[in-house]
Amino acid sequence: MKELKERILKEGKNLGGGILKVDSFLNHQVDPILMKNCGREIARYFRQFGPQKVLTAEISGIAPALMTASILGIPVVYARKQKPITMADDVYLTSAPSHTKGLEIPLMVSCDFLKGGERVLIVDDFLATGETIMALARIVLAARANLVGIGTVIEKTFEGGRALLNPLNVPILSLVRIKSMSDSRIEFEEQ
Amino acid sequence: MKELKERILKEGKNLGGGILKVDSFLNHQVDPILMKNCGREIARYFRQFGPQKVLTAEISGIAPALMTASILGIPVVYARKQKPITMADDVYLTSAPSHTKGLEIPLMVSCDFLKGGERVLIVDDFLATGETIMALARIVLAARANLVGIGTVIEKTFEGGRALLNPLNVPILSLVRIKSMSDSRIEFEEQ
Repeated sequence: MKELKERILKEGKNLGGGILKVDSFLNHQVDPILMKNCGREIARYFRQFGPQKVLTAEISGIAPALMTASILGIPVVYARKQKPITMADDVYLTSAPSHTKGLEIPLMVSCDFLKGGERVLIVDDFLATGETIMALARIVLAARANLVGIGTVIEKTFEGGRALLNPLNVPILSLVRIKSMSDSRIEFEEQ
Repeated sequence: MKELKERILKEGKNLGGGILKVDSFLNHQVDPILMKNCGREIARYFRQFGPQKVLTAEISGIAPALMTASILGIPVVYARKQKPITMADDVYLTSAPSHTKGLEIPLMVSCDFLKGGERVLIVDDFLATGETIMALARIVLAARANLVGIGTVIEKTFEGGRALLNPLNVPILSLVRIKSMSDSRIEFEEQ
Protein backbone atom coordinates (compact mmCIF):
# COMPACT_ATOMS: atom_id res chain seq x y z
CA MET A 1 0.00 0.00 0.00
CA LYS A 2 1.94 2.93 -1.42
CA GLU A 3 0.30 5.69 0.64
CA LEU A 4 1.08 3.85 3.86
CA LYS A 5 4.71 3.17 2.89
CA GLU A 6 5.17 6.84 2.11
CA ARG A 7 3.78 7.89 5.48
CA ILE A 8 6.03 5.43 7.30
CA LEU A 9 9.09 6.70 5.43
CA LYS A 10 8.11 10.32 5.97
CA GLU A 11 6.90 10.27 9.56
CA GLY A 12 7.91 6.93 11.09
CA LYS A 13 10.85 6.91 13.45
CA ASN A 14 13.11 3.92 13.92
CA LEU A 15 13.80 4.04 17.66
CA GLY A 16 16.18 1.07 17.52
CA GLY A 17 15.60 -2.41 18.92
CA GLY A 18 12.98 -3.01 16.24
CA ILE A 19 10.68 -0.32 17.63
CA LEU A 20 8.87 1.79 15.04
CA LYS A 21 7.25 5.02 16.18
CA VAL A 22 4.22 5.85 14.04
CA ASP A 23 2.28 7.87 16.55
CA SER A 24 1.67 10.77 14.17
CA PHE A 25 -0.86 8.77 12.12
CA LEU A 26 -1.57 5.38 13.73
CA ASN A 27 -1.40 5.14 17.49
CA HIS A 28 -1.64 8.46 19.33
CA GLN A 29 -2.55 10.89 16.62
CA VAL A 30 -4.61 9.04 14.01
CA ASP A 31 -5.18 10.04 10.39
CA PRO A 32 -8.77 8.91 9.81
CA ILE A 33 -8.52 9.17 6.02
CA LEU A 34 -5.46 6.92 5.94
CA MET A 35 -7.19 4.56 8.39
CA LYS A 36 -10.25 4.42 6.16
CA ASN A 37 -8.03 3.54 3.20
CA CYS A 38 -6.33 0.83 5.26
CA GLY A 39 -9.73 -0.50 6.34
CA ARG A 40 -10.87 -0.53 2.72
CA GLU A 41 -7.87 -2.63 1.66
CA ILE A 42 -8.31 -5.10 4.51
CA ALA A 43 -12.06 -5.34 3.86
CA ARG A 44 -11.54 -5.85 0.13
CA TYR A 45 -9.25 -8.81 0.72
CA PHE A 46 -11.31 -10.57 3.39
CA ARG A 47 -14.85 -9.93 2.16
CA GLN A 48 -14.69 -13.19 0.16
CA PHE A 49 -14.36 -15.13 3.43
CA GLY A 50 -17.67 -13.80 4.78
CA PRO A 51 -16.57 -12.31 8.13
CA GLN A 52 -19.43 -11.51 10.52
CA LYS A 53 -17.40 -9.77 13.21
CA VAL A 54 -14.06 -8.00 13.55
CA LEU A 55 -12.01 -8.68 16.68
CA THR A 56 -9.13 -6.50 17.84
CA ALA A 57 -7.28 -5.58 21.03
CA GLU A 58 -7.42 -2.21 22.72
CA ILE A 59 -5.95 0.35 22.25
CA SER A 60 -4.20 0.92 18.98
CA GLY A 61 -5.99 -1.84 17.08
CA ILE A 62 -9.28 0.02 17.43
CA ALA A 63 -8.84 2.57 14.63
CA PRO A 64 -7.97 0.17 11.76
CA ALA A 65 -10.42 -2.45 13.07
CA LEU A 66 -13.29 0.06 13.29
CA MET A 67 -12.66 1.30 9.77
CA THR A 68 -12.50 -2.26 8.40
CA ALA A 69 -15.73 -3.16 10.21
CA SER A 70 -17.37 0.03 8.98
CA ILE A 71 -16.67 -0.88 5.36
CA LEU A 72 -17.79 -4.49 5.86
CA GLY A 73 -20.90 -3.31 7.75
CA ILE A 74 -20.29 -5.67 10.68
CA PRO A 75 -19.65 -5.10 14.41
CA VAL A 76 -16.17 -4.83 15.91
CA VAL A 77 -15.26 -6.11 19.37
CA TYR A 78 -12.14 -4.91 21.13
CA ALA A 79 -10.65 -7.21 23.72
CA ARG A 80 -10.16 -5.33 26.98
CA LYS A 81 -7.03 -5.38 29.09
CA GLN A 82 -8.83 -4.39 32.27
CA LYS A 83 -12.30 -5.43 33.30
CA PRO A 84 -14.60 -2.39 33.43
CA ILE A 85 -17.44 -2.45 35.94
CA THR A 86 -19.92 -2.66 33.09
CA MET A 87 -18.44 -5.93 31.84
CA ALA A 88 -20.41 -9.10 32.39
CA ASP A 89 -18.89 -11.78 34.61
CA ASP A 90 -18.68 -14.33 31.84
CA VAL A 91 -15.62 -13.56 29.77
CA TYR A 92 -13.13 -15.34 27.58
CA LEU A 93 -9.82 -14.56 29.22
CA THR A 94 -6.28 -15.11 28.04
CA SER A 95 -3.04 -13.17 28.14
CA ALA A 96 -0.20 -12.12 25.90
CA PRO A 97 3.35 -11.16 26.84
CA SER A 98 4.22 -7.49 26.41
CA HIS A 99 7.89 -7.29 25.53
CA THR A 100 7.97 -3.54 25.96
CA LYS A 101 6.38 -3.76 29.42
CA GLY A 102 8.02 -7.03 30.45
CA LEU A 103 4.85 -8.64 31.75
CA GLU A 104 1.76 -10.61 30.75
CA ILE A 105 -1.20 -8.48 29.68
CA PRO A 106 -4.65 -10.00 30.13
CA LEU A 107 -7.08 -9.85 27.22
CA MET A 108 -10.77 -10.46 27.76
CA VAL A 109 -13.93 -10.55 25.69
CA SER A 110 -17.43 -10.83 27.08
CA CYS A 111 -19.07 -14.15 26.19
CA ASP A 112 -22.06 -12.07 25.02
CA PHE A 113 -20.17 -10.78 21.99
CA LEU A 114 -18.49 -13.84 20.50
CA LYS A 115 -20.68 -16.80 19.63
CA GLY A 116 -20.09 -20.34 18.45
CA GLY A 117 -19.98 -20.56 14.67
CA GLU A 118 -19.50 -16.82 14.15
CA ARG A 119 -17.04 -15.96 11.37
CA VAL A 120 -14.39 -13.70 12.88
CA LEU A 121 -11.73 -11.53 11.23
CA ILE A 122 -8.89 -10.37 13.51
CA VAL A 123 -7.52 -6.88 12.71
CA ASP A 124 -4.64 -5.21 14.51
CA ASP A 125 -2.24 -2.36 13.92
CA PHE A 126 0.98 -4.40 14.08
CA LEU A 127 2.03 -7.96 13.35
CA ALA A 128 5.35 -8.27 15.18
CA THR A 129 5.95 -11.35 17.35
CA GLY A 130 2.34 -12.37 16.70
CA GLU A 131 1.67 -13.07 20.36
CA THR A 132 -1.18 -10.59 20.82
CA ILE A 133 -2.86 -11.86 17.66
CA MET A 134 -2.35 -15.45 18.80
CA ALA A 135 -4.02 -14.55 22.10
CA LEU A 136 -6.99 -13.12 20.16
CA ALA A 137 -7.10 -16.32 18.12
CA ARG A 138 -7.25 -18.35 21.35
CA ILE A 139 -10.29 -16.30 22.38
CA VAL A 140 -11.94 -17.05 19.02
CA LEU A 141 -11.26 -20.77 19.50
CA ALA A 142 -12.50 -20.68 23.11
CA ALA A 143 -15.79 -19.21 21.85
CA ARG A 144 -16.01 -21.99 19.22
CA ALA A 145 -16.20 -19.22 16.64
CA ASN A 146 -14.47 -19.58 13.25
CA LEU A 147 -11.40 -17.52 12.55
CA VAL A 148 -11.48 -16.57 8.86
CA GLY A 149 -8.41 -14.36 8.61
CA ILE A 150 -5.93 -11.92 10.10
CA GLY A 151 -5.40 -8.41 8.75
CA THR A 152 -2.77 -5.99 10.02
CA VAL A 153 -1.55 -2.58 8.99
CA ILE A 154 2.21 -3.02 9.49
CA GLU A 155 4.13 -6.28 9.69
CA LYS A 156 7.68 -6.46 10.98
CA THR A 157 8.67 -9.67 9.26
CA PHE A 158 11.95 -9.88 11.15
CA GLU A 159 10.06 -10.57 14.38
CA GLY A 160 8.70 -13.87 13.06
CA GLY A 161 5.01 -13.45 13.90
CA ARG A 162 3.81 -14.98 10.66
CA ALA A 163 5.53 -18.28 11.47
CA LEU A 164 3.82 -18.31 14.87
CA LEU A 165 0.41 -17.73 13.27
CA ASN A 166 0.78 -20.06 10.28
CA PRO A 167 -0.51 -23.12 12.19
CA LEU A 168 -3.88 -21.31 12.48
CA ASN A 169 -4.17 -22.03 8.76
CA VAL A 170 -5.99 -18.80 7.84
CA PRO A 171 -5.06 -16.10 5.32
CA ILE A 172 -2.88 -13.32 6.74
CA LEU A 173 -2.72 -9.90 5.08
CA SER A 174 -0.40 -7.08 6.12
CA LEU A 175 -0.71 -3.83 4.20
CA VAL A 176 3.03 -3.21 4.39
CA ARG A 177 5.83 -5.55 5.42
CA ILE A 178 9.03 -4.22 6.93
CA LYS A 179 11.92 -6.63 6.56
CA SER A 180 14.66 -4.68 8.24
CA MET A 181 15.08 -1.78 10.64
CA SER A 182 18.82 -1.93 11.14
CA ASP A 183 21.06 1.13 10.91
CA SER A 184 18.10 3.45 11.56
CA ARG A 185 16.75 2.66 8.07
CA ILE A 186 13.36 1.15 7.30
CA GLU A 187 13.34 -1.39 4.46
CA PHE A 188 10.17 -2.83 3.00
CA GLU A 189 9.60 -6.22 1.42
CA GLU A 190 8.34 -6.19 -2.13
CA GLN A 191 4.63 -7.10 -2.20
CA MET B 1 -30.90 11.32 17.80
CA LYS B 2 -33.68 8.78 17.45
CA GLU B 3 -31.59 5.81 16.32
CA LEU B 4 -29.30 6.16 19.34
CA LYS B 5 -32.18 6.49 21.80
CA GLU B 6 -33.71 3.34 20.41
CA ARG B 7 -30.47 1.40 20.78
CA ILE B 8 -30.06 2.59 24.37
CA LEU B 9 -33.63 1.57 25.22
CA LYS B 10 -33.27 -1.78 23.46
CA GLU B 11 -29.75 -2.80 24.51
CA GLY B 12 -28.65 -0.49 27.31
CA LYS B 13 -28.69 -1.85 30.83
CA ASN B 14 -29.21 0.32 33.87
CA LEU B 15 -26.84 -1.28 36.39
CA GLY B 16 -27.90 1.07 39.20
CA GLY B 17 -25.86 3.85 40.78
CA GLY B 18 -26.14 5.83 37.56
CA ILE B 19 -24.13 3.27 35.58
CA LEU B 20 -25.33 2.61 32.04
CA LYS B 21 -24.02 -0.47 30.26
CA VAL B 22 -23.90 0.09 26.51
CA ASP B 23 -21.14 -2.34 25.67
CA SER B 24 -23.08 -4.01 22.86
CA PHE B 25 -22.68 -0.98 20.56
CA LEU B 26 -20.41 1.67 22.13
CA ASN B 27 -17.62 0.47 24.37
CA HIS B 28 -16.67 -3.17 23.98
CA GLN B 29 -18.58 -4.26 20.95
CA VAL B 30 -18.95 -1.25 18.64
CA ASP B 31 -21.50 -0.75 15.89
CA PRO B 32 -19.51 1.14 13.26
CA ILE B 33 -22.58 2.23 11.31
CA LEU B 34 -24.15 3.78 14.40
CA MET B 35 -20.79 5.36 15.27
CA LYS B 36 -20.54 6.83 11.79
CA ASN B 37 -24.01 8.32 12.18
CA CYS B 38 -23.04 9.76 15.57
CA GLY B 39 -19.85 11.19 14.07
CA ARG B 40 -21.85 12.73 11.24
CA GLU B 41 -24.18 14.50 13.71
CA ILE B 42 -21.31 15.81 15.82
CA ALA B 43 -19.39 16.93 12.70
CA ARG B 44 -22.46 18.65 11.26
CA TYR B 45 -22.92 20.73 14.38
CA PHE B 46 -19.29 21.74 14.91
CA ARG B 47 -18.12 22.22 11.32
CA GLN B 48 -19.15 25.89 11.54
CA PHE B 49 -16.52 26.43 14.27
CA GLY B 50 -13.67 25.32 12.00
CA PRO B 51 -12.09 22.54 14.11
CA GLN B 52 -8.63 21.46 12.94
CA LYS B 53 -8.17 18.53 15.32
CA VAL B 54 -10.33 16.20 17.40
CA LEU B 55 -9.12 15.31 20.90
CA THR B 56 -10.45 12.39 22.92
CA ALA B 57 -9.36 10.06 25.73
CA GLU B 58 -8.59 6.38 25.32
CA ILE B 59 -10.33 3.95 25.23
CA SER B 60 -14.01 4.32 24.61
CA GLY B 61 -13.81 7.84 23.20
CA ILE B 62 -11.82 6.60 20.23
CA ALA B 63 -14.68 5.21 18.13
CA PRO B 64 -16.96 8.28 18.10
CA ALA B 65 -13.97 10.65 17.89
CA LEU B 66 -12.45 8.78 14.94
CA MET B 67 -15.73 8.81 13.06
CA THR B 68 -16.24 12.52 13.72
CA ALA B 69 -12.68 13.28 12.57
CA SER B 70 -13.14 11.09 9.50
CA ILE B 71 -16.17 13.11 8.41
CA LEU B 72 -14.45 16.43 9.13
CA GLY B 73 -11.28 15.22 7.37
CA ILE B 74 -9.00 16.21 10.28
CA PRO B 75 -6.69 14.22 12.58
CA VAL B 76 -7.78 12.82 15.92
CA VAL B 77 -5.51 12.57 18.96
CA TYR B 78 -6.34 10.28 21.85
CA ALA B 79 -4.91 11.17 25.22
CA ARG B 80 -3.08 8.19 26.67
CA LYS B 81 -3.43 6.89 30.21
CA GLN B 82 -0.06 5.15 30.20
CA LYS B 83 3.06 6.35 28.50
CA PRO B 84 4.08 3.93 25.75
CA ILE B 85 7.77 3.58 24.98
CA THR B 86 7.22 5.25 21.64
CA MET B 87 5.91 8.44 23.26
CA ALA B 88 8.14 11.49 23.22
CA ASP B 89 9.34 12.84 26.53
CA ASP B 90 7.56 16.16 26.12
CA VAL B 91 3.92 15.67 27.04
CA TYR B 92 1.02 17.65 28.37
CA LEU B 93 0.06 15.74 31.50
CA THR B 94 -2.97 16.04 33.74
CA SER B 95 -5.26 13.64 35.56
CA ALA B 96 -8.93 13.00 36.12
CA PRO B 97 -10.60 11.14 38.97
CA SER B 98 -12.14 7.79 38.07
CA HIS B 99 -15.14 7.26 40.28
CA THR B 100 -15.53 3.67 39.22
CA LYS B 101 -11.89 2.90 39.98
CA GLY B 102 -11.53 5.21 42.99
CA LEU B 103 -8.28 6.79 41.85
CA GLU B 104 -6.75 9.51 39.67
CA ILE B 105 -6.10 8.47 36.09
CA PRO B 106 -3.30 10.32 34.25
CA LEU B 107 -4.01 11.68 30.78
CA MET B 108 -1.18 12.71 28.50
CA VAL B 109 -0.76 14.09 25.01
CA SER B 110 2.55 14.46 23.21
CA CYS B 111 3.49 18.11 22.69
CA ASP B 112 4.11 17.17 19.04
CA PHE B 113 0.40 16.77 18.36
CA LEU B 114 -1.23 19.80 19.93
CA LYS B 115 0.01 23.21 18.87
CA GLY B 116 -0.63 26.78 19.94
CA GLY B 117 -3.53 28.33 18.09
CA GLU B 118 -4.88 25.01 16.80
CA ARG B 119 -8.69 24.80 16.84
CA VAL B 120 -9.61 21.72 18.86
CA LEU B 121 -12.91 19.86 19.20
CA ILE B 122 -13.19 17.46 22.16
CA VAL B 123 -15.27 14.32 21.50
CA ASP B 124 -16.00 11.61 24.06
CA ASP B 125 -18.48 8.79 24.53
CA PHE B 126 -20.01 10.03 27.79
CA LEU B 127 -20.57 13.35 29.48
CA ALA B 128 -21.22 12.39 33.10
CA THR B 129 -19.39 14.31 35.87
CA GLY B 130 -17.45 16.12 33.15
CA GLU B 131 -14.13 15.55 34.88
CA THR B 132 -12.45 13.62 32.06
CA ILE B 133 -13.54 16.23 29.54
CA MET B 134 -12.37 19.02 31.84
CA ALA B 135 -8.97 17.30 32.03
CA LEU B 136 -8.84 17.21 28.22
CA ALA B 137 -9.74 20.91 28.18
CA ARG B 138 -6.83 21.62 30.56
CA ILE B 139 -4.52 19.91 28.07
CA VAL B 140 -5.89 22.11 25.27
CA LEU B 141 -5.29 25.20 27.39
CA ALA B 142 -1.78 24.05 28.38
CA ALA B 143 -0.95 23.76 24.67
CA ARG B 144 -2.31 27.28 24.08
CA ALA B 145 -4.64 25.73 21.54
CA ASN B 146 -8.22 26.96 21.12
CA LEU B 147 -11.06 24.80 22.34
CA VAL B 148 -13.96 25.27 19.92
CA GLY B 149 -16.48 22.80 21.31
CA ILE B 150 -17.34 19.59 23.11
CA GLY B 151 -19.34 16.78 21.53
CA THR B 152 -20.44 13.63 23.33
CA VAL B 153 -22.59 10.66 22.45
CA ILE B 154 -24.49 10.22 25.72
CA GLU B 155 -24.96 12.77 28.48
CA LYS B 156 -26.18 11.84 31.93
CA THR B 157 -27.53 15.23 32.92
CA PHE B 158 -28.14 14.15 36.52
CA GLU B 159 -24.36 13.95 37.08
CA GLY B 160 -23.92 17.67 36.54
CA GLY B 161 -21.05 17.64 34.04
CA ARG B 162 -22.47 20.44 31.93
CA ALA B 163 -22.35 22.85 34.87
CA LEU B 164 -18.69 21.96 35.43
CA LEU B 165 -17.88 22.61 31.75
CA ASN B 166 -19.95 25.77 31.26
CA PRO B 167 -17.15 28.09 32.43
CA LEU B 168 -15.15 26.94 29.38
CA ASN B 169 -17.64 28.98 27.40
CA VAL B 170 -17.78 26.70 24.35
CA PRO B 171 -20.76 24.99 22.71
CA ILE B 172 -21.55 21.54 24.11
CA LEU B 173 -23.52 18.99 22.10
CA SER B 174 -24.70 15.63 23.40
CA LEU B 175 -26.53 13.40 20.95
CA VAL B 176 -28.85 12.10 23.65
CA ARG B 177 -29.39 13.36 27.18
CA ILE B 178 -30.51 11.02 29.95
CA LYS B 179 -32.16 12.84 32.82
CA SER B 180 -32.94 9.95 35.12
CA MET B 181 -31.91 6.36 35.66
CA SER B 182 -33.86 5.64 38.83
CA ASP B 183 -36.00 2.52 39.29
CA SER B 184 -34.04 0.70 36.56
CA ARG B 185 -35.70 2.93 33.95
CA ILE B 186 -33.89 5.20 31.49
CA GLU B 187 -35.58 8.57 30.87
CA PHE B 188 -34.44 10.98 28.18
CA GLU B 189 -34.68 14.75 28.12
CA GLU B 190 -36.57 16.23 25.24
CA GLN B 191 -34.13 17.75 22.72
